[in-house]
Amino acid sequence: MPEQPELRSLKEGETFNGFLLAQEVAFKTSAKGSEYLELKLADASGDLKAFLWDLRAIEGDMDQIAPDVFLRVKGQVSNYNGRTQLRLDKIRFAQDSEIGDFSRFFPTSRRPQEEMLKELDELVAGVGDPWIRRLLELMFVEDPLLRAAFAKAPAAKSMHHVYLGGLLEHTLSVAGMADRACAHYPELNRDLVLAGVLLHDVGKTAELTYQRSFSYSDAGNLIGHISMEADWINQAVARIPDFPEQLRLLVLHIVLSHHGKLEFGSPVLPKTPEALLVHYLDDLDGKLEAMFRAIRDDAGQGAWTPFSRTLDRMFYKPRWPKIP
Amino acid sequence: MPEQPELRSLKEGETFNGFLLAQEVAFKTSAKGSEYLELKLADASGDLKAFLWDLRAIEGDMDQIAPDVFLRVKGQVSNYNGRTQLRLDKIRFAQDSEIGDFSRFFPTSRRPQEEMLKELDELVAGVGDPWIRRLLELMFVEDPLLRAAFAKAPAAKSMHHVYLGGLLEHTLSVAGMADRACAHYPELNRDLVLAGVLLHDVGKTAELTYQRSFSYSDAGNLIGHISMEADWINQAVARIPDFPEQLRLLVLHIVLSHHGKLEFGSPVLPKTPEALLVHYLDDLDGKLEAMFRAIRDDAGQGAWTPFSRTLDRMFYKPRWPKIP
Amino acid sequence: MPEQPELRSLKEGETFNGFLLAQEVAFKTSAKGSEYLELKLADASGDLKAFLWDLRAIEGDMDQIAPDVFLRVKGQVSNYNGRTQLRLDKIRFAQDSEIGDFSRFFPTSRRPQEEMLKELDELVAGVGDPWIRRLLELMFVEDPLLRAAFAKAPAAKSMHHVYLGGLLEHTLSVAGMADRACAHYPELNRDLVLAGVLLHDVGKTAELTYQRSFSYSDAGNLIGHISMEADWINQAVARIPDFPEQLRLLVLHIVLSHHGKLEFGSPVLPKTPEALLVHYLDDLDGKLEAMFRAIRDDAGQGAWTPFSRTLDRMFYKPRWPKIP
Amino acid sequence: MPEQPELRSLKEGETFNGFLLAQEVAFKTSAKGSEYLELKLADASGDLKAFLWDLRAIEGDMDQIAPDVFLRVKGQVSNYNGRTQLRLDKIRFAQDSEIGDFSRFFPTSRRPQEEMLKELDELVAGVGDPWIRRLLELMFVEDPLLRAAFAKAPAAKSMHHVYLGGLLEHTLSVAGMADRACAHYPELNRDLVLAGVLLHDVGKTAELTYQRSFSYSDAGNLIGHISMEADWINQAVARIPDFPEQLRLLVLHIVLSHHGKLEFGSPVLPKTPEALLVHYLDDLDGKLEAMFRAIRDDAGQGAWTPFSRTLDRMFYKPRWPKIP
Amino acid sequence: MPEQPELRSLKEGETFNGFLLAQEVAFKTSAKGSEYLELKLADASGDLKAFLWDLRAIEGDMDQIAPDVFLRVKGQVSNYNGRTQLRLDKIRFAQDSEIGDFSRFFPTSRRPQEEMLKELDELVAGVGDPWIRRLLELMFVEDPLLRAAFAKAPAAKSMHHVYLGGLLEHTLSVAGMADRACAHYPELNRDLVLAGVLLHDVGKTAELTYQRSFSYSDAGNLIGHISMEADWINQAVARIPDFPEQLRLLVLHIVLSHHGKLEFGSPVLPKTPEALLVHYLDDLDGKLEAMFRAIRDDAGQGAWTPFSRTLDRMFYKPRWPKIP
Amino acid sequence: MPEQPELRSLKEGETFNGFLLAQEVAFKTSAKGSEYLELKLADASGDLKAFLWDLRAIEGDMDQIAPDVFLRVKGQVSNYNGRTQLRLDKIRFAQDSEIGDFSRFFPTSRRPQEEMLKELDELVAGVGDPWIRRLLELMFVEDPLLRAAFAKAPAAKSMHHVYLGGLLEHTLSVAGMADRACAHYPELNRDLVLAGVLLHDVGKTAELTYQRSFSYSDAGNLIGHISMEADWINQAVARIPDFPEQLRLLVLHIVLSHHGKLEFGSPVLPKTPEALLVHYLDDLDGKLEAMFRAIRDDAGQGAWTPFSRTLDRMFYKPRWPKIP
Repeated sequence: MPEQPELRSLKEGETFNGFLLAQEVAFKTSAKGSEYLELKLADASGDLKAFLWDLRAIEGDMDQIAPDVFLRVKGQVSNYNGRTQLRLDKIRFAQDSEIGDFSRFFPTSRRPQEEMLKELDELVAGVGDPWIRRLLELMFVEDPLLRAAFAKAPAAKSMHHVYLGGLLEHTLSVAGMADRACAHYPELNRDLVLAGVLLHDVGKTAELTYQRSFSYSDAGNLIGHISMEADWINQAVARIPDFPEQLRLLVLHIVLSHHGKLEFGSPVLPKTPEALLVHYLDDLDGKLEAMFRAIRDDAGQGAWTPFSRTLDRMFYKPRWPKIP
Repeated sequence: MPEQPELRSLKEGETFNGFLLAQEVAFKTSAKGSEYLELKLADASGDLKAFLWDLRAIEGDMDQIAPDVFLRVKGQVSNYNGRTQLRLDKIRFAQDSEIGDFSRFFPTSRRPQEEMLKELDELVAGVGDPWIRRLLELMFVEDPLLRAAFAKAPAAKSMHHVYLGGLLEHTLSVAGMADRACAHYPELNRDLVLAGVLLHDVGKTAELTYQRSFSYSDAGNLIGHISMEADWINQAVARIPDFPEQLRLLVLHIVLSHHGKLEFGSPVLPKTPEALLVHYLDDLDGKLEAMFRAIRDDAGQGAWTPFSRTLDRMFYKPRWPKIP
Repeated sequence: MPEQPELRSLKEGETFNGFLLAQEVAFKTSAKGSEYLELKLADASGDLKAFLWDLRAIEGDMDQIAPDVFLRVKGQVSNYNGRTQLRLDKIRFAQDSEIGDFSRFFPTSRRPQEEMLKELDELVAGVGDPWIRRLLELMFVEDPLLRAAFAKAPAAKSMHHVYLGGLLEHTLSVAGMADRACAHYPELNRDLVLAGVLLHDVGKTAELTYQRSFSYSDAGNLIGHISMEADWINQAVARIPDFPEQLRLLVLHIVLSHHGKLEFGSPVLPKTPEALLVHYLDDLDGKLEAMFRAIRDDAGQGAWTPFSRTLDRMFYKPRWPKIP
Repeated sequence: MPEQPELRSLKEGETFNGFLLAQEVAFKTSAKGSEYLELKLADASGDLKAFLWDLRAIEGDMDQIAPDVFLRVKGQVSNYNGRTQLRLDKIRFAQDSEIGDFSRFFPTSRRPQEEMLKELDELVAGVGDPWIRRLLELMFVEDPLLRAAFAKAPAAKSMHHVYLGGLLEHTLSVAGMADRACAHYPELNRDLVLAGVLLHDVGKTAELTYQRSFSYSDAGNLIGHISMEADWINQAVARIPDFPEQLRLLVLHIVLSHHGKLEFGSPVLPKTPEALLVHYLDDLDGKLEAMFRAIRDDAGQGAWTPFSRTLDRMFYKPRWPKIP
Repeated sequence: MPEQPELRSLKEGETFNGFLLAQEVAFKTSAKGSEYLELKLADASGDLKAFLWDLRAIEGDMDQIAPDVFLRVKGQVSNYNGRTQLRLDKIRFAQDSEIGDFSRFFPTSRRPQEEMLKELDELVAGVGDPWIRRLLELMFVEDPLLRAAFAKAPAAKSMHHVYLGGLLEHTLSVAGMADRACAHYPELNRDLVLAGVLLHDVGKTAELTYQRSFSYSDAGNLIGHISMEADWINQAVARIPDFPEQLRLLVLHIVLSHHGKLEFGSPVLPKTPEALLVHYLDDLDGKLEAMFRAIRDDAGQGAWTPFSRTLDRMFYKPRWPKIP
Repeated sequence: MPEQPELRSLKEGETFNGFLLAQEVAFKTSAKGSEYLELKLADASGDLKAFLWDLRAIEGDMDQIAPDVFLRVKGQVSNYNGRTQLRLDKIRFAQDSEIGDFSRFFPTSRRPQEEMLKELDELVAGVGDPWIRRLLELMFVEDPLLRAAFAKAPAAKSMHHVYLGGLLEHTLSVAGMADRACAHYPELNRDLVLAGVLLHDVGKTAELTYQRSFSYSDAGNLIGHISMEADWINQAVARIPDFPEQLRLLVLHIVLSHHGKLEFGSPVLPKTPEALLVHYLDDLDGKLEAMFRAIRDDAGQGAWTPFSRTLDRMFYKPRWPKIP
């Protein structure tokens, strides 16, 4: 794929010619009865609205112009009231094979994947309990498919860390806080906490689809990420001879209970200090990320972000300055 | 163990000499400062209060007189205000080995176990779908330990079918209703429904303990019966080459969703007609059993049973007579 | 009314000339400031959008072009992106008297009305208890107005069985399941159950309006169908000399409690086995119908139906094939 | 029945000889194994514990000594730690016919019944709307049984106005406030409000039993007071030729919706200003009465009443003095 | 500011030339790609849509055309389907200084401000308790800023009394009802009730912004009106030597608890009769006003108002006529 | 006060002679009709039941023997079934002045008060923001009464840290975790977080009474600790010239919102990252303490603690051993 400018950098009057991901596709009828095409097109830097006023300019099969496919488009950049738009002259469906690196078209974690995987490996290697370390190695180090998916998946469809790499970034952030918490509350078993943190959302690699748009897989809708990761943990444990049954239950318990309440999809409540901790730190990390992101992303003038459906409130944007 | 009369048949003035299960044990102090022992003793026919006014009559180690052990007792039957009591003369701890058939000391299903197992086998054999039938055979026919536990476990600790064999009796009753429902709603897949029904509570064999009193096992409290049976289904599926992945998800979905709501411990909501049906029929069967039992068991004079905490209401006892 | 093609069968390029029901009417202003008319028009086979770009083409009084009236329209069929539309040339208000059989303009049960009424009569005639049978005869056989309304009304405004005849179809389906349940649970009084099933929603004939669009009547909004049918049952009972008071209470209890919970509009909880059963089977039948219909109606490509607000979830569409 | 002192006035050392109502009856076994009888006995002034240490002192059939019967007792008054008790020497069952005026044995409204009935009649006579006045006359003036029951019933089993005459006292108090509210909010229809107030709880005359202890009748448990009064209103309306249907719905609507929320047993929400007002004033009056009574009745030293389960809180007892 | 007609009185074909408040401002793109401006403009009598099809007609800086500013506009009145619109020829930003009396642009209480302030003063002067009177004088009589704000603020952003002067109008209405209630329930302390009523919402003067549109201030969002008024009461009390601590707590308690439930933002439940009364009358007054207004404002034909999100229901509009 | 042994160390057969705190006092009647006294007596090491069988052994006024007073008692230690009891020979009321150090009679934090105060001072001194540091100094360093109460109060009546010094211990623990969290999430303002943590529960010094038993003060019940501390913060701020209004709101916001939900008594939701963090860490610390304490305190044999009403669950006691 040839070089092309990022959407975020486009200026009024420029011509854009390149590949974009179609996030929304709508054939509409104008007040005069003529049909036109309204699109939401995206690359990793952002998205914009695009309009094709004459459908005859579509090359190839019109039915291929659908959500979640790549398109090759050419058009003029205009800027109305602060929002950039594209008025298209040409458009055609593009094969995935024409696109080199998909990550150029999706929001992606600011942390480099390699750095995050290295941090993951160090966390696993630092586990003192041999049973727990072996379990984590089997899943995160020795299973290349799972490792790759764990590094790529987003943490959620819409709540927090909604970008490629978000799952691993979120997991590592919770692990960092958990490490500090175990130093603060010395009665906690750090290795057990760490196992719970690293495994608590690993099923999201299969619950979500994130090849193009972020959504739920069929298995995700039918059984959910908690049941998936419980299955995977049971499979890994079965491959470790003499793995202690009590430890299996303790690890599963953290994973199963980490949503904290039955009505949030956990079939059991946290009943050990380690499970309680993982629930709180996971919840806190997701909500803090959502809050910080909303504050950062809101370029509006007022003191308040738009209403967040995730947290059911607006956030106050002004930050009290730190004294260095 | 020698023959002994059932507690339910004791008459005032008789002497009872035999083995009983201690359900409650309390050492109390009388108003005069002397210590005595108050017990709740049971066999399968019922239970009664027993008093030992002189602790020196205990043979052997007093500390062994504890809940959930068998005791050898001798005493006089008295009858105060309609309730039978025992005034004990002698008491000693009894080894389990002195007791022959435990079932003489626990409430047990009115349906013979053999009859129920035969019905189970016929249900499994009648499944037309080869994948589903194979899965059910592996679990209920070819796993003798699970089969035995499935025939012995109660269905719950306190809600409904709270007696040995209650789990199988409840399961078969739901299966019977499910069979009729599939005839009524022809769009339902009967084999899939049947798999869901037979598997929906099988994890209770390990969630509950029922060797003596009915309670929750550690694993039951930590991960719950739904996660257990999901694990077992995954294990069984893994032993059937080429088992269709979609079918695995559909069966797991029924099992995971059968409590109907997240706040009742199901991590997902029923999203297929078969899952919806299994949830309703399971719930209905348990509640009807609880209601019928409360009406049958209440010998009181009024028109209403005692308040049922399970259903949060009293039940109306008078039955409108059927016209033959 | 002359013959006219069904909306569902229209092809692009054809001219449609006939009567249609106006479900939605909106006068809108185009971006150029000219006014146009956007309509949703329906017959029993479906509905489509229609546009009139020149309001001068309206014959007669423009104010009569309103929701829930019939219109005579002439226009060209077009097909944009898979959805059929009408571009109107002519339009006028039509008197009800111009329309012969209203049922051609509303969704209607697939079961013939006569067949359903015959099944209802057989159910009533099969009741062995003379008091119950007399009550049902008075309401469903000897009151021609109620009988006609019962055969015509939908079962709900938006939840399930939302079509003419839906109330009777739903009632008979629940009765069929109830019959099977009474065979399965022999302690149930079948005649009492049947009375409860047949009467549980009869008030919907007056709670809903269904002459044109489906909505709530004033009385429906002010007192609700449960209070209406309680009133009618009391009136019918008053016409049967010596009707047993206890039986009146038992029948009313099923009707009043059939929503199962206070927050769903039942002033009392089900406190008899018969009332519990009717609640469950009514709820199950409505939800299964909604689920099957959503699966059948969704022609989309994905594995999931659109989000159902009634059940607060999406449904999984693929059906595991039955083994014949 | 001969004169006898009130329980509240008994002094230590006196002998009591008279009739009392048995509220609780328990045959108990002492630590020494002898059986004794513990009673809670009451007249309208209060209640006390009584003990019979020798069951042979019971005259007649011991089984007749049961809750909710009258007893003839003789015993000595003692006073332990501030609470008066009776040590009985003699006890026998008493026929209802031996008791003259039952009201001497139950808590009763401080307002004389005649005064309250006169106020009720004036309220009815003051209604200007002829339809509404006729409806109220039929129920409260011309139906002597209902009028008598309305004057005698308590307002509730345990929440507020729990004494004979409490229903009428509560109803008149709400009517008084409603009168003031209609003067304050002139848009309200006072006659309609008054009809709603007077009828809103009239079904409690049959929902509750209050011949001896206060409890729910079978009909009360099965259909509830709201459905009963709706039935009675419909019956009365049927006896008034040409009663306007809209008015019938408006009156029924107030009655059906007066609990304010579905989860409190109202099948519909208040949707007219009059219905909204009646709900608020009814709720306020009951809660204020419960609060004032708790403050008055609590002779304890602290600043707080015992926890009220009705309002889920304690009340603050000190009253800020009024400036005359 | 020169005279100009009220929006409500405009007729089709007239030319409007004057100042209006911009409530909504949207720059849109027509189907043909040209940009236009869509506005919602308001004065105190109402609002209407306005369109500017040629952006070059904007005088001055286009960025000043924003929500909550005044605009000087000239345009033609048109009337489409019953709704009045403006087609603008000229438009420019207007300085606040060009506007004389802001109240001509906002909905305002029908009660004159002076009349309401006089009633407030009489209420304060009529308080017999010297401590309470002094507290109320300090806040409502001697603090001119607070007094002015109290007379100007609306009672809420969207629930009830949403117009300038609404806070005082609502407060006085509750005070009137409270006065009547204290006459009806003589155990209530009228002075304490009055203090609670007058102070219960005074914090809304700072919680809301109402210079132009009605919204929440930063402080309103961060700490809420209840905490603000608690602060002000504490400040005023601090200025009254020897103010009784118990009275301070009793007044604060009414204010803090007046939302009635924790989930509605009250940190404590009403635990005194006075607090309970203020909660009920406040809630009733707001809901009645919302209901009466919805009924008055709805000019539609049906019997029901639009769905009210505040009360989660529709209201029945027909009023049963009063008998004079 | 002379030396006396701790209750926890008493052995059967010993004589105890000393002062104890009366937690519960009940005059009871034995089955034989004689009155006796049953007490729950405590020192800081624990509590036990005590019985006085002959009330004539009470010296002085019997009415002074009441809950929450000190008693001088003499009696014999007995040991029934594992529980230590006292059979009293002598008992009298004791003046507070006879008791030297009250802390010998109440559960007390394991952390020395001086050490905790020093840690508090270091935290305050380490605040870089001069406004925040000044506010904290005014309250915690320069107000000796508040400082002393802050060091002495328990953190709650029954939920967590229920012992003298518990409030400060809990506050410091949350501060420690908050410090670590601010290092982990560098966008957080540490000084603001610290202010929120130190102030979030300071009102409990006046909400609770803890001179003898732990309970709520009148002010605590009427306005709650959150409103108290908001008042105190406002008072302190008023003493700091030019304190920034925005900072006042930000600090108050953390304090007001720290319960996290309205239904838990916070009048506003956390809307800044700092407020969100303080809520989570406060909640986590309290629940972890309750869980660890329940596990430590439960000497029973099973794997599960008693049911915790605070967390609505049992906790799993076995701890997976740490690898050193």
